[in-house]
Amino acid sequence: MRIGIVGSGQLARMMAFAGKPMGIEFSFIAAEGEGTVCVDGLGKVARWRSSENVSELFVELGEPDCITVEKEQLDSGILKAFAPYCEVHPSIKAVEACQHRHREKQLLGKLGIASAGYTFNTTAVESVKQLGMPVVVKSCEDGYDGKNQWRIKSQEDAESFDKLEISGDIITEQWINYDREVSQVSVRSRDGKILHYPMAENVHDDGILARSIAPAPDLDQHIQKRAQDYISAILDELGYVGVIAMECFVVGDVLMVNELAPRVHNSGHWTQNGAVTSQFANHVRALAGMPLGCTDNHGVAAMLNLIGCQQPQPEVILDCAALHWYNKSVRAGRKLGHINILAEDYVSLNERIQLITENLSKP
Amino acid sequence: MRIGIVGSGQLARMMAFAGKPMGIEFSFIAAEGEGTVCVDGLGKVARWRSSENVSELFVELGEPDCITVEKEQLDSGILKAFAPYCEVHPSIKAVEACQHRHREKQLLGKLGIASAGYTFNTTAVESVKQLGMPVVVKSCEDGYDGKNQWRIKSQEDAESFDKLEISGDIITEQWINYDREVSQVSVRSRDGKILHYPMAENVHDDGILARSIAPAPDLDQHIQKRAQDYISAILDELGYVGVIAMECFVVGDVLMVNELAPRVHNSGHWTQNGAVTSQFANHVRALAGMPLGCTDNHGVAAMLNLIGCQQPQPEVILDCAALHWYNKSVRAGRKLGHINILAEDYVSLNERIQLITENLSKP
Repeated sequence: MRIGIVGSGQLARMMAFAGKPMGIEFSFIAAEGEGTVCVDGLGKVARWRSSENVSELFVELGEPDCITVEKEQLDSGILKAFAPYCEVHPSIKAVEACQHRHREKQLLGKLGIASAGYTFNTTAVESVKQLGMPVVVKSCEDGYDGKNQWRIKSQEDAESFDKLEISGDIITEQWINYDREVSQVSVRSRDGKILHYPMAENVHDDGILARSIAPAPDLDQHIQKRAQDYISAILDELGYVGVIAMECFVVGDVLMVNELAPRVHNSGHWTQNGAVTSQFANHVRALAGMPLGCTDNHGVAAMLNLIGCQQPQPEVILDCAALHWYNKSVRAGRKLGHINILAEDYVSLNERIQLITENLSKP
Repeated sequence: MRIGIVGSGQLARMMAFAGKPMGIEFSFIAAEGEGTVCVDGLGKVARWRSSENVSELFVELGEPDCITVEKEQLDSGILKAFAPYCEVHPSIKAVEACQHRHREKQLLGKLGIASAGYTFNTTAVESVKQLGMPVVVKSCEDGYDGKNQWRIKSQEDAESFDKLEISGDIITEQWINYDREVSQVSVRSRDGKILHYPMAENVHDDGILARSIAPAPDLDQHIQKRAQDYISAILDELGYVGVIAMECFVVGDVLMVNELAPRVHNSGHWTQNGAVTSQFANHVRALAGMPLGCTDNHGVAAMLNLIGCQQPQPEVILDCAALHWYNKSVRAGRKLGHINILAEDYVSLNERIQLITENLSKP
């Protein structure tokens, strides 16, 4: 069995680290200029050229049995080009739905899933009239980690925004004053079986995920149940195979879906140490036709992203913690690794988070 | 940080899979003719030539910070040759003690650790007089998986054995009619901290480990405590850094040590899925100077060795199970992979073992 991954970053790396011990081989399709240091030694690497060269590329990649993705921001023509040669999971339809914010909103709307009100390709002034103030304008594509987003807090903001030249589709959404950000990671097998991880609570810093806690503390069981119902509806609608992530806001007792990612997700990294089967292993198992692995958690877990910092000193990694480092060159604002922390309860988890955070900030 | 491993088999492979996600690099020192398929892509591989070429070899290996071993049956001259260039863990003294059965017995004797009575380089006839019948004769070196052992059950066996030409040192031991075979895997850090995994119960088949169950069911807490005391004494005596395994017999309420392995061990493979930190991760953490990882178990676990069989079909791996496959070519009697199985209690663990075993034997 060989899996080809579109992308050669840390998510591809961690899928390979989960799958290679099972005897599964990997290949990586890197974009022009995309770094490949994360997947060094982990399998064949080839550069995407064009759909016309795909038969050569397929051979160069070692004739994978299945193509998957580590990102949704890609030309879905790549997936379409491979489709005659091997299976593609998640489906092209699923990737296309998640890579364009308007299609995503339409999917959510069709399935009756709560999400923020929006306008599509409408001026900010008009949008504010419809949606109220404040709103947030987002590019439909290429928005991640808070990039390509504009917050409109006043009539003046709206008027100034409308003078900007923004290329491509935009969506304007009600600004949600949420109580908490949570995410649901789930996985669907080839035969349609779905398993859910416990939801995680996420804290973002400047639009980039800083940490997750799982299971999300004191989460109402109705919220957890609703998230599972929502994501199951999405998975079945898309005929999805593999891991999916759904980022949500909790507002009072309402769960509002913010974003879907058709792939393993940063807010699921805690499963590497905190669950019976990691999200990476389960994505591979789904693609390989293995029964899905149990998604139960071991106690409580935290994931701390290491952003723009040097590789931590060995002594920083306490006995309850595991370091995951991606071998990328250090650059400000870049996700370079993460630390998973386990505990039996939230009190000791928080103590450990604090201790490790202090250790990390020592010079 | 780069770790060089003497050996290029599945234990080296699994150490690398545990360490590479932490950002640690690996190199492998293969013997003349030793297969390297297990470590394909996981780091630099070089062949051992002679002590005279060690400075070249050290450079070829990428100048590792530390050398370790995946086996005790090796020329300790290799470790001595590297000692001027980098750290060697476990210590040469530890490897030498474990690779020769008489030195191992002397170590156990010195520390007051119970093990079977023995004679050294003595005829079988004389040994039987001293030890009683039956006995087992073992080569002091190169004995593993039941190889190079002769069982003496009668006076005739003894007389016939004494006519054989056996090269090298031999040790003759009382035959122990044990109730159970168990093993203790523990780890010692650079600063002398020791952590113990729960003991595993092992079942051998033709001298090869067939399966382990951990924690060993219904094990007397005094036995577990004695094993920890024994192994702590050995680790401190040897100034040991890394993972060690101690195979033992339980006879009534007596714990008798059978064998030490100065390395990660097959009976500790269950820790990959059944413990907070695997034995492989902990060996790497010890060498890298990280705090040792928590050795607590998650529920109960079984490890089934896959010996001489084809790679299992995907559907064999149930939701509670994880496949580890070594990518070696299939050969009768060869350890090719293992399956770890988790459960909340021994009843369901046994049901799962049975189900998976039946699945494996289907054509």
